[in-house]
Formats: sequence, C-alpha cells, structure tokens
Amino acid sequence: MSHKTQDPSLKSWVEVPSHSDFPIQNLPFGIFSTDGKNTRVGVAIGEQVLDLSVLAEESFFDEVAIEDLSVFYEEALNPFIALGKEVTKAVRERISDLLNQTNSELRDNERVRKDALIPMSRVQMHMPVKVGDYTDFYSSEEHARNVGTMFRDPDNALLPNWKHLPVGYHGRASSIVVSGTDIIRPKGQTKADDAEKPTFGPSRLLDFELEMAFITGKETRMGESISTANAEEYIFGFVIFNDWSARDIQKWEYVPLGPFLAKNFASSVSPWVVTIEALEPYRVEGPKQEPEVLPYLQYEGKKNFDLNLEVAIQPEKGEGKVVCRSNFRHMYWNVNQQLAHQTVNGCNIKVGDMYASGTISGKDKDSYGSMLELSWRGTQPIQMPDGSERKFILDGDTVIMRAHAEKDGVRIGFGEVRTKVLPAK
Amino acid sequence: MSHKTQDPSLKSWVEVPSHSDFPIQNLPFGIFSTDGKNTRVGVAIGEQVLDLSVLAEESFFDEVAIEDLSVFYEEALNPFIALGKEVTKAVRERISDLLNQTNSELRDNERVRKDALIPMSRVQMHMPVKVGDYTDFYSSEEHARNVGTMFRDPDNALLPNWKHLPVGYHGRASSIVVSGTDIIRPKGQTKADDAEKPTFGPSRLLDFELEMAFITGKETRMGESISTANAEEYIFGFVIFNDWSARDIQKWEYVPLGPFLAKNFASSVSPWVVTIEALEPYRVEGPKQEPEVLPYLQYEGKKNFDLNLEVAIQPEKGEGKVVCRSNFRHMYWNVNQQLAHQTVNGCNIKVGDMYASGTISGKDKDSYGSMLELSWRGTQPIQMPDGSERKFILDGDTVIMRAHAEKDGVRIGFGEVRTKVLPAK
Repeated sequence: MSHKTQDPSLKSWVEVPSHSDFPIQNLPFGIFSTDGKNTRVGVAIGEQVLDLSVLAEESFFDEVAIEDLSVFYEEALNPFIALGKEVTKAVRERISDLLNQTNSELRDNERVRKDALIPMSRVQMHMPVKVGDYTDFYSSEEHARNVGTMFRDPDNALLPNWKHLPVGYHGRASSIVVSGTDIIRPKGQTKADDAEKPTFGPSRLLDFELEMAFITGKETRMGESISTANAEEYIFGFVIFNDWSARDIQKWEYVPLGPFLAKNFASSVSPWVVTIEALEPYRVEGPKQEPEVLPYLQYEGKKNFDLNLEVAIQPEKGEGKVVCRSNFRHMYWNVNQQLAHQTVNGCNIKVGDMYASGTISGKDKDSYGSMLELSWRGTQPIQMPDGSERKFILDGDTVIMRAHAEKDGVRIGFGEVRTKVLPAK
Repeated sequence: MSHKTQDPSLKSWVEVPSHSDFPIQNLPFGIFSTDGKNTRVGVAIGEQVLDLSVLAEESFFDEVAIEDLSVFYEEALNPFIALGKEVTKAVRERISDLLNQTNSELRDNERVRKDALIPMSRVQMHMPVKVGDYTDFYSSEEHARNVGTMFRDPDNALLPNWKHLPVGYHGRASSIVVSGTDIIRPKGQTKADDAEKPTFGPSRLLDFELEMAFITGKETRMGESISTANAEEYIFGFVIFNDWSARDIQKWEYVPLGPFLAKNFASSVSPWVVTIEALEPYRVEGPKQEPEVLPYLQYEGKKNFDLNLEVAIQPEKGEGKVVCRSNFRHMYWNVNQQLAHQTVNGCNIKVGDMYASGTISGKDKDSYGSMLELSWRGTQPIQMPDGSERKFILDGDTVIMRAHAEKDGVRIGFGEVRTKVLPAK
C-alpha cells in the first residue's frame, strides 16, 4: 500500500502536545482497561487512548475485513498480531486516516468519538503480549567489553565467539511484567570470593539493564529458518525492556549454564508496542562487522535504529536523576541478524515471542546501560541530587527508562517503563 | 482421601497384559485424538485409552463436581490440571473405581463403554501440556562429573557451585514436541580447536540426553517462594524428556551465557503424564548431600524415585540396541529442591511449566545418559548389532527412551518417547 503513515506533515485532529511520544506518525498498539478487567486493544495518540474495540463495533474497520472482531477484546495483542502484517498494517493505516485532521468520519461523530477516545490518565495499561518464549541477546559490543574487562581480562575482553555470532540465551517468560508493576528485591545464594561457603539473603547488587526488545508477529515451523533479508516480515514491533539483574546471585550461579535466578525474578517492559513501520524513517547504518560474518548473518541495508534511550533513578523521597543516555544504534548485531541466528538451527518461533537486545551501552561512560558499568562494579558511585549515592539500586528506588526517535520535527516515542523496587520479603 | 489407587491388589475389568506400563495403579493423563483434530483428555489403561470427555458427558464425573466440562475437550491438559490437585486426584480416584473389576457401572454399560474405550493403536497422541516456561536442570552428579572431566579438569570435575545449588537454565518451550514427531538435524556454527574461524553446516555431534521432567499444576505469584516441604503440592506429574543436544554447536556458543542453539531446535517428551500420586510407592532416599546445603534446600523424607530408565537406538535398517540403562534415583538434587530453588528468588511459576532433570547418568559406564558420555566424546564408539558403530546419532536413527517403576508385581510405566532424526535441510 502507498499510504504514508510516517509523512512528517501529517497532523491529527486529536491534540498532540509538542514533545508527545505519540503523534499521528507513531500509533503504537497496547492493551488497556478502564476498570482493571475488561481489557481491549488501544492505540496511543497524544494524551489519549483510541479504543479499537469501539471502532470495530462501530464498523470503522469494515474495509479491512477482519473476520473475528474479538481480537480487539483480548487480554493480549497476540490474536490481533497473528492476523498478519497485511492486516495489522491496514488497521494502522486506517487509524492514521481516521485521525487525520482532514478526515471527518470519526472527528465529527461525537457519539463514537466520546466512547473511542479515553484520556491516558483514566486507563490502566496491561502486558501488551502473552510472551511465549523470551530470548535475551548480548549484542552491544561496548557492554560486552565492559563486562569482559571487569570480570575477565581487559586485554581479551570479548570472548572468541562474540564477533562471530549474536550470543543469546533463553530467559523466563512468566515474570515479564508491564511498566508500573512493582518488583520485589530477590533473595538468593551468593558467595564472596574469600568465603568458604555461600550464604543466603536479599541480593545486595540489584541492577537494571537498558534494553530494547522486538516482538514477533508470525510463526515458523520447526526446521524452518528466517533469513536476514526476510526477518522484518516476522517483526511486529518494539518495546523498552528492563532486564533486572542481581549481580551477586549471577556471579555465583552462572558458570557453566548461564544466568538463571539472577534474571528470572522479573523483567519490565513498556506498554506500547511501536511498530517497525513507525520506525522506518529512523534507520541507520550499523557498525562495520569485522571479521566478516558467516553468510547467514550477512545483510544489506540499514538495519539499526536511531533511538535515544535514557534511564533515570527516582529515589523514594527526593529528586531523581538521569543516570544514562544511550542509543539503540550502538548495537553491533541488529535485529535481523538476531532473528536469523535464533532460527538458523530450525528453532521455531511463535507470535508474541520477545527478543531483547542485551544491555545497550555506548562508548561514553554516561551511556553505559547498567549500574554495573556506570558505577564500574561499585567503585565509582553515582552522586544523586539528594546527596546520596548509588552503586546499585536501593529499595524504594524507581527506575524509569525512556526511548524515542526524532527527525524532521516528528518524535516517535515509546513512553516509559517505570518500576519501583520493594524490599525483599 | 483414603482411596488407595496404588493398592497392588487392584485389578481392572479392562484387560491389562503383563508387562503393560498402564495397569489400574497408573492411570496417567494425556491428550489424544482419533482424527488428528478433535483433541480430548484420555487416561491409559492396558492397551486402551479411556476417553474422559465421554465419561464426563455421560455424567460419570458428577460426584467430582467439575463446573466446566470443556476441560476434557482441550488441546492440552493445562485447564484440567489448573482445577487443582483436589479435583484431579478425585477424577483419578473415580476412574480407578470405574475401572475396578468389582465395579459394574461402566463395565456393564455397553453403549458408553464402547465409546469410552479406544484401542491405543487407533489414537494419535499430542503434546500433553502447553508449556509456558521450560527449565532444564543439571542435577545428576555423575553426568556433571563426566562432562567436567571431559571438558575441563578431571581433578576438579565439579564446579564450585554444583553441590550448593541445583544448577539450571531456561530452555525453549516452543520446540518441545511429543513422541513420534521426527526432528531435523540442526545446522549451526562450529569451530574446531585448531581452526581460525568458525564454519557453518549440519551438526556432526548430535546427541540425546536422557532426562525426566515434572510438570507444575499450580501457579504462584511473583515474590512467592515454594518450600521443599510444599513443593509436591505444585507437581502434577512426570514425563520422559529427551533433551536433544548438538555438542559441536554447544561447545562454540555456550560461554558465557549457556546453551542456546545447541538445544533449542527440539526436545521430545513422552505423551502420558504419570501423576506424582502414582509414583508414591517408588520413593527412595536420595544421596547424602555433603557439604550440607543451605536451609531453603534442606528436606525431609524420601524425595527420589526408583524409576528404571533406558535408551535404545534403532537404525533405519537393521537391529536396534539398548545403549543405556539408568535410574532416576541417581539424582543428587531432587524435584522438591529444584522447585524450591527455582522460586526462592520470587520467580513465579505457572500451570504447565516443565522442569527437566538434566541428563541422568549412573556410576556404571552403561548407565550414562548421553552419547557424549557413552562414547566418551567419541573415543569409545558403541558397537551396533548391524556391525556399524555410533559415536553420536546418525540421520535415520530413531532414539527411544523408556521409563518404569516396578514393585510388588505392579509396573508403573511411562510408555516411551520415540524420535527419528531426519537429515539437515
């Protein structure tokens, strides 16, 4: 279709404040409710949520020909996404038309408009998808170098496989929660280097990891592989992903089979899924990959995205602070390569799978995407405005991550993922 | 309840051949169909499948008071299991009564009996549960020692954390398939020790891992932990689990974040879920744990199970051979400890999660649960009856795993998980 949902000159009849994450060029999908129960599919526009179940019922999607309108009344986007990119793109294009300032269909239908547009302040956002499987990659070179320097050997910070494949591992899907859900400091085994035995207690090195995650919208069968050229057909959109990590638990448990309890107590995501179509204008070249990668990982075109990222810590009382400013463009391995690698062995994927990038660190010290790196393992604490300092995350702290792209006066944002840490039980 | 479903003197009016895995004392649950489509819940008895949807419709479960009988017509056992152990135990006890030779209700009701009992030869078995999250543990000391001896240091074969916690990691749920599903040899990156760069191609070291897996039947909320004393309330039952592994892919990819593509192309399970109640008579003491484990991992009572396990390789043409005889009792870490560890950090669990034991190797060379160990990394090939030899699994081979307990003349079996390996695409 030729519809230009990203045209910078588009304006909506819905008021969109300057610096809003949600202009008419964005139109991300999410799951919301107004009573905590009856969840439905919504699209963010300015400071409103557009209720797609209302539009569907009022026949505004008739031209898109969706057989079963119940996809708009579900607990997760999965059934909607599973309709396929042709349909979800057509729905998004139809919404773009309906919200266009020149279009009177919805604008001048007061009855439907009042039902369909709900102020964000009145809605509760839910997990956007039911996550089947969740993979966490490790695709930022700077992050891998920082961790390798701290924990292994500064002269050989990257392990031998790192530049040959996008290292990844499977994580826990059940504990991925949406922004606004408090998490509880995990307890577990840790062992000091000089201790004879491990001890048990609350993690003392609780950390965030600043990541982006993509969500797949199309399944494959076992034995099938996805090429880097086709990968984007399988990608519905992106969310911000906070991969909570307990560094002390991780250190003791992770050899030889990888992180487990250090990660699986919680991960937090932003509620609005920004489609890959909305990010089209923000494509940039990735870093040159040297040594040359194997053919199945080679790709053409701009597969990185210029997304500004930031992390703020908000203490329970007192002023908060942005502690990290990074960018999604820093990724060494792009999402096409990640998905090609995930499936090159015939591993099947499903609708609603989540694939996180790994911590996104840049070259500058203030662009490191975790406290581990920002405080350099606790040796260089961050000074907070209230006079306190942070090596890691304290009880009562709220960690807020934000992401947005900006170009030609258009800002495509993700909103935020905001999570408060409660004391261990 | 006082019903003794495990009483060795129980006999069924359904014919149960001697050496059947499915006497009236077993009554495992599974999902079956007769046309490949309309799946429903069944129970194995002798060489028949008892169709619970028929019994439910004919009011045979009225006394159990199940509100929504649709749980018997699902694609997976999850909704049935989610009714809770009180209900699933009551259903199993009711079935035990109905099949008892002294009970005429079903036996003498020819109309219902003909509908409800279907020869196993006529049914197709499906995945018993929809797996939410899947964890693979590493809980056999002999297996961990063998691997550590081969790949690291024979004098320090066990890593420092191994005797302090049940090492585990998350695996891929989407590629867990039921017995009878062919798998395709995975392709991937491998790197020879003396090579400068990795190469890409079909795995040359395809292996099985003999494991048992338990399935959870009750969920927890994030932040909750399960004690070793309560763990069994959360365990519905067990299946045999073949954790397919590509050793050459694993070797190159697994540092530092654990196995990924070496495992996630496929895992295979047996179709009948044997309840933990059916295994009650086969409890045995576990090995003494030294050094003493932390309080949250301490337990009382017999938490290991005396289950005979075997693995056979059946070449495409020619005679097969049992290559491994092991026993589930060899586990160092028991299932109660595994579940307590999985949740000690507040990680939430769901109904239908699967937790595999890790390769179950015994002390004797013929009890090793993988080709890696049986052929000692390929240095001691196994001789097959047809004159060929096996270091790892070849295209066209079928790997068959079986498990059963036996005592007082009663044999509680799992049937088998049987998987043929097809060539790489």
